[in-house]
Parts: sequence; structure tokens; C-alpha cells
Amino acid sequence: MPVAPIELQWPHRVFFARGLLAPGHRLLRDTLAEGSEGRRVRVLPLLDAGLVAADPTLPARVSAYLAAHGDALTPALAPVILPGGEASKNDWGLVERLWSLFNETALCRHSQVLAIGGGAFLDWTGFAAATAHRGLRFTRMPTTSLSQADGGLGVKNGVNRFGKKNWIGAFTVPWAVLNDFAFLDLLPPAVRREGLVEAVKVALIRDRAFFEFLDTSAEALRDLRHPELENAVERSGLLHLRHISTSGDPFELGSARPLDFGHWAAHKLEQLSGFTLAHGPAVAVGLALDTVYARRIGLLPETAAERILECLQRLGLNLWHDGLDLADAAGNPLFLAGLEEFREHLGGVLTVTLLRDLGQGVEVHTMDPDVVLTARDELRARFAPVPAHA
Amino acid sequence: MPVAPIELQWPHRVFFARGLLAPGHRLLRDTLAEGSEGRRVRVLPLLDAGLVAADPTLPARVSAYLAAHGDALTPALAPVILPGGEASKNDWGLVERLWSLFNETALCRHSQVLAIGGGAFLDWTGFAAATAHRGLRFTRMPTTSLSQADGGLGVKNGVNRFGKKNWIGAFTVPWAVLNDFAFLDLLPPAVRREGLVEAVKVALIRDRAFFEFLDTSAEALRDLRHPELENAVERSGLLHLRHISTSGDPFELGSARPLDFGHWAAHKLEQLSGFTLAHGPAVAVGLALDTVYARRIGLLPETAAERILECLQRLGLNLWHDGLDLADAAGNPLFLAGLEEFREHLGGVLTVTLLRDLGQGVEVHTMDPDVVLTARDELRARFAPVPAHA
Repeated sequence: MPVAPIELQWPHRVFFARGLLAPGHRLLRDTLAEGSEGRRVRVLPLLDAGLVAADPTLPARVSAYLAAHGDALTPALAPVILPGGEASKNDWGLVERLWSLFNETALCRHSQVLAIGGGAFLDWTGFAAATAHRGLRFTRMPTTSLSQADGGLGVKNGVNRFGKKNWIGAFTVPWAVLNDFAFLDLLPPAVRREGLVEAVKVALIRDRAFFEFLDTSAEALRDLRHPELENAVERSGLLHLRHISTSGDPFELGSARPLDFGHWAAHKLEQLSGFTLAHGPAVAVGLALDTVYARRIGLLPETAAERILECLQRLGLNLWHDGLDLADAAGNPLFLAGLEEFREHLGGVLTVTLLRDLGQGVEVHTMDPDVVLTARDELRARFAPVPAHA
Repeated sequence: MPVAPIELQWPHRVFFARGLLAPGHRLLRDTLAEGSEGRRVRVLPLLDAGLVAADPTLPARVSAYLAAHGDALTPALAPVILPGGEASKNDWGLVERLWSLFNETALCRHSQVLAIGGGAFLDWTGFAAATAHRGLRFTRMPTTSLSQADGGLGVKNGVNRFGKKNWIGAFTVPWAVLNDFAFLDLLPPAVRREGLVEAVKVALIRDRAFFEFLDTSAEALRDLRHPELENAVERSGLLHLRHISTSGDPFELGSARPLDFGHWAAHKLEQLSGFTLAHGPAVAVGLALDTVYARRIGLLPETAAERILECLQRLGLNLWHDGLDLADAAGNPLFLAGLEEFREHLGGVLTVTLLRDLGQGVEVHTMDPDVVLTARDELRARFAPVPAHA
């Protein structure tokens, strides 16, 4: 028996809705209780502190929901409020704290960890849950447009280490992902807009019709109007989900990472900024950079490239960040190291997704650093804010 | 798209052989280099310090092997010698140290971590590898009869936390498992015998013919004769592997753990002994306890139970440990808590595998503590060593 294939199939439950915490709404209850065969499921609710600051009624609403469904669910503790945001992924002590909490409350593999918050919050709490008892049930309620449109639907978790994003992490299929549009209303406008970046990204590599919708609706989306915003977030999320469930490589055993268009520079810029630059704005710059690069090497037609840059701007996104100009003592630009770090994180040969047309991603295995720098210079010239005293 | 199933299939490469590190033997080379498409694969060799103490030539032999196959493999570092044994799983600092090493050597997801050592060593190094970049390629060379016959072939890794075995860990399919019988020759006789315990276990729940082989060969196995020992280890390993790859639940999402006959008490005894009692001897006691229990509740015929106890003794295994007599201040036996900890680790309802006949496991969902204690008393009366001054 030299090779015995191991096969696994997980149900990946993903829903988009509004008002899931209304006591009468049964979706959350039914999802948490699925497969419990009539036994009451223990639920440990974890809330992103940033979200609770925006909606102080949230802990009480979660408790009321669990109480309303006390025949099926039982809280392991009152809702626990924990830090979110990218900085939380740099704090290993949080993982240790959550492990202790899981142990003290005697959670088992059939207990539910219900995490409600943004993408970074879901990443680190998800890692802690995935590695306790080799995996507790973990139900995500992403609360930002970015996590609903992209990261929250995936099979990854992680924390940062050695100054590198997600250096520690695991691939794990969450029990369920419940996206509640009501949470988006709580976000500051700039943050509410962040998910649009990933929507543009996935449209550009996969779905031209979706790009046309985003382009046509750019002003409505910039102004965060309903239902355009929800439509964009949901369609983006479902495109990401379809890729994960049909790509044949959801745990990324190969070299490709076809959804990561624009991400090599974005991850590096986040790091260079000390994580003061958020993921969404970083990806907007990364998309612009790789769009100009693809045009300059003759891969992407100029008209398509200009439509992309224009659309990103009309969505209210900035296409320049000063981190692109950081250099070492010898004058070498620091952001270029992002290419090798991207390769190292994925493994194998460098594989970057670029565009050859709207809706058509293509993988390349080399990027010319001189052309990258010329593209960077073009971004600065076109999109850097003019200094006030120039 | 409310439920999008995620499907995965891994090749699980498992081999049994002798002399895999001879420079001319190509199996290790071909396994490490598989899928590299002609690029040289970076290999980080990790060696169990206990193994190197028994064979100080090992680091040089590993280096020579990699050098002999330098066209396909390249060492990321000279072999790194690290602690093994159950105590190593209690030392979180080792995981941190290995993460740093992976980062300093810039290992990527397509690099190979080659871990050579006993089951505990493979457990903690495997956890570190599984969580770096969300999973480096991890090739195991189990070097004990216990790990070759059982744990080394599985899809688990882990470290201990909160005094509980494998509280932190993950399910991950290793790149390959290469079992080299030559390593067994290095073990002290009592340790070389430990794998026989898991062989008896899997025979009893799955394969009566294998039990008859073990029973017939008991004296040869006790004396660690060739080829009986290798035959027992390999057949045990392949039975475990067949279960993992065909059970339909390799990542244990359900409640059952059908291979863990005798293990609830074993895990607790290891912990109560401060991990001075090794896994193999602990499982021998656990098997005896649950065998007597099954006979006392009328599940297992007396003749079968007696054959099992006799066979375990003829294999040279001890069927009693004083940890079964430890009690709290109120006189309550401490080992009984192992039942609830076992349930908590698996999740859901308590599920224990007992026997109804030789080769026939059966799952039960309750164990009567009074009968467990009576079974414990019977073990003490029959198998505890007589005090020298009694």
C-alpha cells in the first residue's frame, strides 16, 4: 500500500442576509445546532472590540439571541470582547489567552466558537479555534465589507510572525460563514468601501460582467448606496467562494494563488507601514501597480488599463502610498522584497496573477524589477497627492 | 449558494523498508523530490536527540545521503538535533524555536521538513511544520516500533498543554511516511516491544487473523525476533492506515474514534505519571482494563478475554500501573476523570470502543464507573507485582 489517498469533504455553509441576530431569525440557531441530534450546543461568542465600540448593544443582543433559542443553544460564557484589527494579529498573547479560555470553559470539538468581527479578528480567533483539540467548530460572522466580500469566506486563518503576514496559520474549513449586511451600516464610510477593492479584483480576474456592473455603479458604490453595495459585496463573496470550492486546490498545495492579483505589493506595503495601512487600501495600490505593470509589458491593452485605474478612482480609492518610496541605505526600494516573500509564503516558483484583459487573469512566473519601478514612478506621478506647499 | 462543499484529496505515501539511508537507495530521494519538476528541493533534516544518542553516525549519514542526491535535493541546513520523547511535547519553547529556524532558513511551502525520530518527536515537529506558512511539506521517518505500527502513519500532530495530551494540534496529511526497520534495531528491548501493544489493539478490533498470528508468535515477538517483529509492525501500520484512508472521517469530525480501544485510561495514566509512563506500556494497561470491563458487563466472552490477557502477558507486557490507585483527598480515583477528558477531546457524546469478540470492536456511549473500579481491582489482584517484603 505505497499510496493510500486521503479524501475529505466538508460542507461549507455560506449565507448572506440582514438582521441575523433578531431573536426570531432562525438561520443562526439552525446553523449552530446542525448535527447536534437534539443535544444543546455550547456556544462561546467572541466579539471584536472595535465592533462593540460601534454598537455597544451587541453583547446584549447576542446573549438575548442565545437565550431565545435556549432549547437548542447554551452559552459557554457571556460574550467575550477581544481585540481585532491587523494589530491583533501581531499579538501572540491573544492566541494563548483564547486557548486558556477554551480550556477553562471545557469546550469540545462539537462546541461552537461564534466569532463576530472583521477579517483580522476572524483570522486570529480562527487559528486558536483550529488548533485547540485539533479543531473546534468555528462559525464566522464577518462584519466588514472586506471580510464579507473576500477573506471571511475562505479556508484560511493566521497570525503574523517575524513581521510577516499570516506566517503562522492553518487551512481549515469553518463550520459556517454568516454574512449580515446590517453590520456594514456600523462602519465608517472609508472602511465600508474597502470591500469594493476585493470586488474589483475578483471581477477583473474572473468576471467581466461583474466589472461592468461595478464600473457602471461606481458613483453609487462610492456613496455606499443600497442595494448596490450589498450586491457588490455578495457577488464578490460568491465568486471567491466558487473559486475555493471548485479550484481543486483549496488548501494551496500547488504554487498558484490565482485570487491574489495585486496582493504581493499590498502585503508588503501593509508591513512597511507598520500595519497602519489597512488591507483594502493596500490592495487598491497593489491593483493599480500591477495594472500599470501589465500595460507596460504589453500584456494588458491600454484602454483596459485606463478603465481599471479610472474605475478604482471613481470608487473613491487612493492609488498611491508613500511606502512605495521607502528605500534601504543603499537606495534599494524596500517594497520589491515583497515579491520574494510572496513566493516564499506560497512556495515553489513565483506565481503572480496579472491581467490580459478585463475579466481575464493570467499567471506569470517572473516580474521585471525595472518595469515594476517604472510602474511605481507612474503611479507617483499620476496619483500621489500634490504637496500643500509645492 | 448556501452550501458549497469543499473537497480535498491528498496522496498519502507510506512505505516499509530497511536501509533507506544507504546512499544508493532511491526511495527517500524520489519521495522528497516528487512534484519538484526538476528543481532541487530544499530539505531541512530534523533528528530526534534520543535517536542520535543511540546512533551517533546518523547526522553524518543523513548529510551523506543528501550529498549523494545533490542533483535533486539540497540541505537547507546540516541536520538539526532536537529533543524527542513525551517530555518534548510539554515544552512549547521548542515549537517557537523551530518556527524561528524555518523562518531563518526561509523554508517555503514546497520545501521539505524531514523529521526522523519517535512518535512524540514527529508530533511536535509536525505541528510546527503544519502551522508555518499554513503548512510546509513534512516527511516523517518514524524510528520506533510504536510510531511505525501506529501513530507515525496518521494525520495528527500535537503538543501537550494544560497537562492534557495533544490539547494543541492539527489534522494534517504528511507528505510521506517512510518506515525503516533498521531504526528498530537501535532501541532498547522494552521500547522495541512497545509497538506490539498497538498491533494487538488493532488486531483485536479489526482483524482476528492478525490476532491469531500475534498470539501464535507471542514468544518470538517478546524476544524481538526477525522477521516476526517487522511483520507485526508493518501489518499493524497498514491496518491503521487502511482505517484512516477508508473510514470516511480521517479528520474526526464526528464523535467516533474507533481505533482508540484502551486509550481513555492510557492517556490519563500517562498524565498522572507525569509522563514517566510511556504510551505503549500505558496502552497495555488500558487494553487490559477495558478487556476485563467488557467481560464483566457481559459483552466479551470470558474465553476471549482470558486469551487477550494471556497474550499480552506472553508478549512481556505489564498489565498493572500504580497510577490506577491514585485518589484525591476524598478518596475518589483520579484515573476516572480520563473518561470525561477523552470525551471532551473528541467532542460530542462519549464514544469508547470495546470488544465483543476477538477482532470485533464495538462502540459504547457509557461506562459504569463502579464496574470500571471493579475491573481495576481485578487487574491489581492478578497483575500487580507482589511487594518484596509482603
